[in-house]
Amino acid sequence: MRIGIFGYGNLARGVEAAISHAPDAELVAIFTRRDPEGVKSISGAPVVSAKDVLDYKGRIDVMIICGGSATDLPVMTPTLAESFSVVDSFDTHAKVDEHFKNTDQKASTGGNLALISTGWDPGLFSIARLYASSVLPSGEDYTFWGRGVSQGHSDAIRRIEGVLDARQYTVPVPEAIDAVRAGETPTLTTREKHRRECYVVAKEGEDLARIEREIKEMPNYFADYDTTVTFISMEELKRDHGGIPHGGSVIRNGTTGVKNEHSHTVEFRLRLDSNPEFTGSVLLAYARAVDRMAKRGRVGAITVFDVAPADLSPLSLEELRHRML
Amino acid sequence: MRIGIFGYGNLARGVEAAISHAPDAELVAIFTRRDPEGVKSISGAPVVSAKDVLDYKGRIDVMIICGGSATDLPVMTPTLAESFSVVDSFDTHAKVDEHFKNTDQKASTGGNLALISTGWDPGLFSIARLYASSVLPSGEDYTFWGRGVSQGHSDAIRRIEGVLDARQYTVPVPEAIDAVRAGETPTLTTREKHRRECYVVAKEGEDLARIEREIKEMPNYFADYDTTVTFISMEELKRDHGGIPHGGSVIRNGTTGVKNEHSHTVEFRLRLDSNPEFTGSVLLAYARAVDRMAKRGRVGAITVFDVAPADLSPLSLEELRHRML
Repeated sequence: MRIGIFGYGNLARGVEAAISHAPDAELVAIFTRRDPEGVKSISGAPVVSAKDVLDYKGRIDVMIICGGSATDLPVMTPTLAESFSVVDSFDTHAKVDEHFKNTDQKASTGGNLALISTGWDPGLFSIARLYASSVLPSGEDYTFWGRGVSQGHSDAIRRIEGVLDARQYTVPVPEAIDAVRAGETPTLTTREKHRRECYVVAKEGEDLARIEREIKEMPNYFADYDTTVTFISMEELKRDHGGIPHGGSVIRNGTTGVKNEHSHTVEFRLRLDSNPEFTGSVLLAYARAVDRMAKRGRVGAITVFDVAPADLSPLSLEELRHRML
Repeated sequence: MRIGIFGYGNLARGVEAAISHAPDAELVAIFTRRDPEGVKSISGAPVVSAKDVLDYKGRIDVMIICGGSATDLPVMTPTLAESFSVVDSFDTHAKVDEHFKNTDQKASTGGNLALISTGWDPGLFSIARLYASSVLPSGEDYTFWGRGVSQGHSDAIRRIEGVLDARQYTVPVPEAIDAVRAGETPTLTTREKHRRECYVVAKEGEDLARIEREIKEMPNYFADYDTTVTFISMEELKRDHGGIPHGGSVIRNGTTGVKNEHSHTVEFRLRLDSNPEFTGSVLLAYARAVDRMAKRGRVGAITVFDVAPADLSPLSLEELRHRML
């Protein structure tokens, strides 16, 4: 399959690395809104101006769109879906319906297939929730994130006056995850599920108590959590917090039996050294499915829920039955 | 959907219990090879002689076949697939190809859809292996079973002269599962992955040392494992070993990055109080998918790999996107 990558940040480089290991994928071009002269791809794939993307119509089977969910994807995905089959990682949950509808309309008009909102959450975690709730309809779901770096929360800290750089880790509360793993079905507040660890580099001479207070009181981001703030030097940040790890667990505790007399726990867990590389790898697997489904005539918008697992693998159905059933 | 259950043992009762909680399933009849007069269903559903099953053609959307993999399913599934869309839990891995082929032929002839080999392994564990290997193509897979009761191994002990009853637990070796969970990719022998715990009730006056030796030396079943044998009374067996728990983990450790510089762990884990009830619940979810796919015109044999997750849920695609994406 012939792949295009639209956008060229961390996630795009993750997709590019995944393509370099895939037996059935060729990277045709990377599209950037920057001056392509100044951008060098890791793999040596051509870097092209985003303005020229329509020249590639018919030469790319699936475009993997690597933009941000806030402002990029709501425009990019529907627009590109008119000319290409596409995959994106849109993750603003409250706006999924609108994004799905806009993308579905444009993809249908163009006769293309568009899969939105894949990655690991939304993505693999969504599927885990669906499988678990389908086989255990009476039960409770829990999603824990971390320990891992939240880019959004790190950015929020960086916007505070006097902050040079910051890294925020989301951490599941051990007592909560242990209780759920043991089969309990507690009602947990936001604060009881996760805590937030912040490592902050401040400008010299700043009022650290003021910065700490501004972080801890920030609505939506930190106010509802137990938050710790640790001031460190730029050297420490670079040395100890250079990675982008993440992960988490989807856990469902449910019952079976006529009188719900037996209980069961289903858990899907990820531990990721590199969030963007793993996400990129998931996007490529879904690009494979989109390529196949589009060639079978499917058009419009879909999500991970619509994709049969077999379509994610380069192996044939017969090989899959042999090796994995 | 109108469901039939063919066979009426532990697994069938698990399916029956699952149907009692499903908003969209009706149990039309249970088919038994025994005298139906002597069989009473838990739910009050009619119990019918297996000989009369063809009278129900057109009155059942999906037949869930609850027979043994050794001799029942190789005959039952292809035969029934000629007249009904069916689901089975065939788990003899070495004969999956043959079973798939036979079932595919008969189902295609009859214009029906037949999903073979679902449950949790094969079934949910197979899907976990497929998702994990598709998103982490460079890596190693591990499947650990237990702690749980193996019916096959318990039966093997019961066939030994002087044994009244027995229960065998398959137990993952803690050092092995801990190492894999920590991201290591060891090469493990059979003995290094699992051990076997046997609880045995012997006839009075039997040579216990002889029974223990016969268990531990039994080829395929026990000889390749560290096996412990504990003799207990019938009361103890009934009191402490009456349940049918099981579970296990599929774990994949894989790498991403151009130079495979980042590592990741994906784990899918089950802890089941009742193996037959959970398996029955999985069979019902796949019956739902078979019903939908058959109504969309799909015929022949398929496996869990061919089923899009959305088809397992009673919820609409829109509700799924709202609640689970």
